[in-house]
Amino acid sequence: MIIVVKPNSTQEQIDHIVAHIHGMGLRTDVSRGIKRTIIGVIGEEDAVRNAPLAAIPGVEEVVPILKPYKLASREYQAEDSAIDVGFGVKVGGGSLGMIAGPCAIEGREILLEIAKHVKAAGANILRGGAYKPRTSPYSFQGLGEEGLKILREVGDELQMPVVTEVMDPRQVELVDRYTDIFQIGARNMQNFNLLNEVGQTKRAVLLKRGMSATVADLLMSAEYILAGGNKRVILCERGIKSFDSSTRNLLDLSIVPNAKGLSHLPIIVDPSHATGRPDLIPAMALAAVAAGADGVHIEVHSCPEKAMSDGPQALLPGQYAAVMGQMRQIAGLLNRNIPAPHGSTQSGRQ
Amino acid sequence: MIIVVKPNSTQEQIDHIVAHIHGMGLRTDVSRGIKRTIIGVIGEEDAVRNAPLAAIPGVEEVVPILKPYKLASREYQAEDSAIDVGFGVKVGGGSLGMIAGPCAIEGREILLEIAKHVKAAGANILRGGAYKPRTSPYSFQGLGEEGLKILREVGDELQMPVVTEVMDPRQVELVDRYTDIFQIGARNMQNFNLLNEVGQTKRAVLLKRGMSATVADLLMSAEYILAGGNKRVILCERGIKSFDSSTRNLLDLSIVPNAKGLSHLPIIVDPSHATGRPDLIPAMALAAVAAGADGVHIEVHSCPEKAMSDGPQALLPGQYAAVMGQMRQIAGLLNRNIPAPHGSTQSGRQ
Amino acid sequence: MIIVVKPNSTQEQIDHIVAHIHGMGLRTDVSRGIKRTIIGVIGEEDAVRNAPLAAIPGVEEVVPILKPYKLASREYQAEDSAIDVGFGVKVGGGSLGMIAGPCAIEGREILLEIAKHVKAAGANILRGGAYKPRTSPYSFQGLGEEGLKILREVGDELQMPVVTEVMDPRQVELVDRYTDIFQIGARNMQNFNLLNEVGQTKRAVLLKRGMSATVADLLMSAEYILAGGNKRVILCERGIKSFDSSTRNLLDLSIVPNAKGLSHLPIIVDPSHATGRPDLIPAMALAAVAAGADGVHIEVHSCPEKAMSDGPQALLPGQYAAVMGQMRQIAGLLNRNIPAPHGSTQSGRQ
Amino acid sequence: MIIVVKPNSTQEQIDHIVAHIHGMGLRTDVSRGIKRTIIGVIGEEDAVRNAPLAAIPGVEEVVPILKPYKLASREYQAEDSAIDVGFGVKVGGGSLGMIAGPCAIEGREILLEIAKHVKAAGANILRGGAYKPRTSPYSFQGLGEEGLKILREVGDELQMPVVTEVMDPRQVELVDRYTDIFQIGARNMQNFNLLNEVGQTKRAVLLKRGMSATVADLLMSAEYILAGGNKRVILCERGIKSFDSSTRNLLDLSIVPNAKGLSHLPIIVDPSHATGRPDLIPAMALAAVAAGADGVHIEVHSCPEKAMSDGPQALLPGQYAAVMGQMRQIAGLLNRNIPAPHGSTQSGRQ
Repeated sequence: MIIVVKPNSTQEQIDHIVAHIHGMGLRTDVSRGIKRTIIGVIGEEDAVRNAPLAAIPGVEEVVPILKPYKLASREYQAEDSAIDVGFGVKVGGGSLGMIAGPCAIEGREILLEIAKHVKAAGANILRGGAYKPRTSPYSFQGLGEEGLKILREVGDELQMPVVTEVMDPRQVELVDRYTDIFQIGARNMQNFNLLNEVGQTKRAVLLKRGMSATVADLLMSAEYILAGGNKRVILCERGIKSFDSSTRNLLDLSIVPNAKGLSHLPIIVDPSHATGRPDLIPAMALAAVAAGADGVHIEVHSCPEKAMSDGPQALLPGQYAAVMGQMRQIAGLLNRNIPAPHGSTQSGRQ
Repeated sequence: MIIVVKPNSTQEQIDHIVAHIHGMGLRTDVSRGIKRTIIGVIGEEDAVRNAPLAAIPGVEEVVPILKPYKLASREYQAEDSAIDVGFGVKVGGGSLGMIAGPCAIEGREILLEIAKHVKAAGANILRGGAYKPRTSPYSFQGLGEEGLKILREVGDELQMPVVTEVMDPRQVELVDRYTDIFQIGARNMQNFNLLNEVGQTKRAVLLKRGMSATVADLLMSAEYILAGGNKRVILCERGIKSFDSSTRNLLDLSIVPNAKGLSHLPIIVDPSHATGRPDLIPAMALAAVAAGADGVHIEVHSCPEKAMSDGPQALLPGQYAAVMGQMRQIAGLLNRNIPAPHGSTQSGRQ
Repeated sequence: MIIVVKPNSTQEQIDHIVAHIHGMGLRTDVSRGIKRTIIGVIGEEDAVRNAPLAAIPGVEEVVPILKPYKLASREYQAEDSAIDVGFGVKVGGGSLGMIAGPCAIEGREILLEIAKHVKAAGANILRGGAYKPRTSPYSFQGLGEEGLKILREVGDELQMPVVTEVMDPRQVELVDRYTDIFQIGARNMQNFNLLNEVGQTKRAVLLKRGMSATVADLLMSAEYILAGGNKRVILCERGIKSFDSSTRNLLDLSIVPNAKGLSHLPIIVDPSHATGRPDLIPAMALAAVAAGADGVHIEVHSCPEKAMSDGPQALLPGQYAAVMGQMRQIAGLLNRNIPAPHGSTQSGRQ
Repeated sequence: MIIVVKPNSTQEQIDHIVAHIHGMGLRTDVSRGIKRTIIGVIGEEDAVRNAPLAAIPGVEEVVPILKPYKLASREYQAEDSAIDVGFGVKVGGGSLGMIAGPCAIEGREILLEIAKHVKAAGANILRGGAYKPRTSPYSFQGLGEEGLKILREVGDELQMPVVTEVMDPRQVELVDRYTDIFQIGARNMQNFNLLNEVGQTKRAVLLKRGMSATVADLLMSAEYILAGGNKRVILCERGIKSFDSSTRNLLDLSIVPNAKGLSHLPIIVDPSHATGRPDLIPAMALAAVAAGADGVHIEVHSCPEKAMSDGPQALLPGQYAAVMGQMRQIAGLLNRNIPAPHGSTQSGRQ
């Protein structure tokens, strides 16, 4: 932490600031420039960070130097994390998690049909929502536990790990019985109690970036889960708020290399929610792989105009297969691979 | 809902779209312009809104016309809602809710001291956090139930209604025992399960705008609470995300007349969290009252440099009293008033 | 400037960075924390700021400390600037510049009619565009010099100073012959050649904030004009880009106290372009005065549905008079006044 | 254009609106829904668009349907434009324009050295700034005409087309003598007079997206140039403003397929200015090619820590060669190619 002192401060005032900092149990290093005096604050990381230094009279600005996350940082762990999500599928460390499926679980038959399509195309993780965060209280809110059961059955039948959203700390135990990966939605990225709750489990977590979260905010939310003891966090970029309403959100692919520089955690990209437009999803999916993403999350539906949620943004199975072929080629160029799921007794559900 | 058909569509394609819409049980009105054909979709509001029309081939764009909120709208209720929050204090309908207090409840003595100051200055609702949403898992998270008890005691002693944040559906019952107003924080504005839970209670709710929420998003979240049966919602602007980091967030005062045009719900303004800077809070507090806000929420601490949370953004009691005097004058000019709390048996806690 | 060195750097690497900085003619102050070494860079302001320090190997982050503007800063001039714009009207230092008039100059008669209305209501500066920056090349682009003549005539007849936009360095000389104040539009805030050109004149400049400009960006653009020798700069907030399309732009009133803290220059507010909605303009105009603005800029048209540019956002003369009455009251409360223009020989056009 | 009428309007009011529209020479199509009446406005595109319909009493909302750009649209020209920029290099239609070079032209020797490096790596267009838009009036502003001469000489020596920024309508003629492509910088994207001026020339224009421009805004600015008669416009994404300051701007790669769907114009991507961080540029360059960009613009400097402008964001020549190799592979996968410049008499400067 660096403190910039207001201009024209007297020696007495500077001494007062320094004394105040010492009173908090921290040390100082005072440096006088031509126009400004700056004070370096030295001490235990957390003590420094949480001290209300900006409230001391005479302080013009407090400049943080240390990153507020630890367990998520590259400094804590230099090598990439590879998260084993069951059925032999890993995400990270050169292996891509290719997540596909419908927005909402609507029934066993339709989910199985879609799942077969996406698995045949190369997807290795099946998605489907049983609890749907909808902006309107009057919209379809998901099938709940019935949906979870269907998802588990289809995942087991096709030997694919599954991912589904958990929205409420009270649902964590129930969802844990059925899923391989918890999804924390963008709207809940800073629902700290929910983060704490999944942090107590041993199950992998797909943590979606909030619509106005910086890369540091995203890593701080990951830190909540890691601090709870659960090391299996997969980050996910899904678009942020922007002034251009021609796309649903704004896909920020630069967070892929940005997060990978700061953190050892894998990060995947969801061009479906980011763009909301099937005509843009394939190009953005290829770009995600080229940017170094550890996976791509795409909504697929065999009959979008009958979908109960977000139909208009889903790719058709044939479109998904086509873009998957190209993603595989780009991944290959960059020496990364898309592992196929398999279901021996040893490598099934965890 | 209006459908814009892709240019150069044939009559056959348009007929197909129309047939598709009719198949959903909706009616149509086709209008041919020089360059584009547009199709009005007519039917029950919810059926229209939730139909995945954009997924029909040949559709270029779907333009929503109807507002997605109902109970929150001015069309549903023309006159302003005035929310009785206990101890004789109303918010809305010409009465301003002046909320003040520390960020976090740190102890009985300090809270009582601050509360006496702000009440003397004219505040009519006391705030204080017992559960703190902190971006870092390593920061002070609040005193929990102990804090709630202290808040209740101080509120009763001074005969002031109190407001405190609830972060988790599992806390709703507990917090309900102590508070007069639930606060839903900005990060939980789209925590739909939490909204549902407070919607089941009879207690007033202060709903803070999310950092990237539009006015329509805010009203949809209010709709969740209203749809649950709880009509006592107070909106709160507290700053949105912006590209200028010289303030913590960006205070959007235009949402005050904007929301009041669309909705009958009262809206108050929180310049403390919006700016994060004590030097800007007084000017923004006056501007909020001038803009027609139904109240102002300001953090006050008698010793900011020792505060356990957000100290640097708190006003000192004397600063608060000064700005309160000016707010009262501007409110008076605009024929609005700041009711003092009082504690007869009839008008105490509800 | 402070340099944060990458973690785990050796003494040799740090020495190398220090030597590099010394090679640029700058001095250093090295401070070792527990986790990070930081290096204060000391030297002449401009030399420090322009040195490409971030490109030195081993540097993790460069933290600027000094503000990049000088002449615009409070440190350079402690007291508020009051800009004399002619006809006895001052903007700043407690005097408010109340600018009103149509978006575009459409003809002598209609301008005179509108001007009489706004002057009667209390406006002290008349606006009207002769050169219109339109996003479409097919829209009405303004009357050009003919419009300037009309504006000057009407201003002289009513003894009001006038303001009009200049869009091109080649127009500066011509516009200078007719106007009292140059307006630099939001889209040209970083048209540095245009800023240089008006900086060579002696005429007052109304500098509108760009749609994605920070307060520091705005002050840097003012610095261009000031550095050219023209000290008569009036800042203007007119809304920034936002994700909520329910208003045309997002009015940022916090820039008023923010800019006034950093700079001695006056700042006025334009709620017309900021909101684009007549139903929101009155509330935002009152809020602007309450926030401490040195003036308010409002578009007024006596027949908005026939206006050739931006008609839908104009107030009617009666609406303007009503809000002006309230603005005057709020200004009075805050000990600020709205000077009436007058036209003695001494105080006419400059 | 569609007009949504306010709820609870009487037949008389609707008739009044319709009469008003007819009075503007436009036709109407009235459609009654259950809750709202909507009126389609039919007529010549420009007449409809410029009519101030929102100012008619009783109108709740005006919904534009027609796109405001014509010559830039896919409807106007279905096939991709391929822009011949001289020396045998085309941009668009499957050919990628790979632009590289230093931020500013600093001298003949250093430019030639850098140019040889980037040409050897595969770049086919050389960049370098002679006029630099700097946010500070005290920063290096470029070598001016001396720089242009150096750029021309080096381009001719290496038989590469060159691109350089023009900031002022008064410079257009001069810059035209030396360059192959005009660059319009992000800050000047809505400097309409400058757009008009380059629209009068026959020279290719690289039009950079403004920091808060939507895709429609960008295409409208292109329309200005096209409407002037110059059909040789190349769009360029270079990052927009965002709330996350960890990158200089936010690269929006979704504009690549988005713009290509709406327009026939080629679009290239500049990850250097977008990210401002050499550690992120390679990943974003690969992603740009994968997203379908018609070229990539990268700043390269052989000695970034001595660069006179933007040194910290430049790639070293070796880094550029490495990422160019990977870009070429991805382009190949997608059946697109990077043409090498060559200098026969016929294909030299135009």
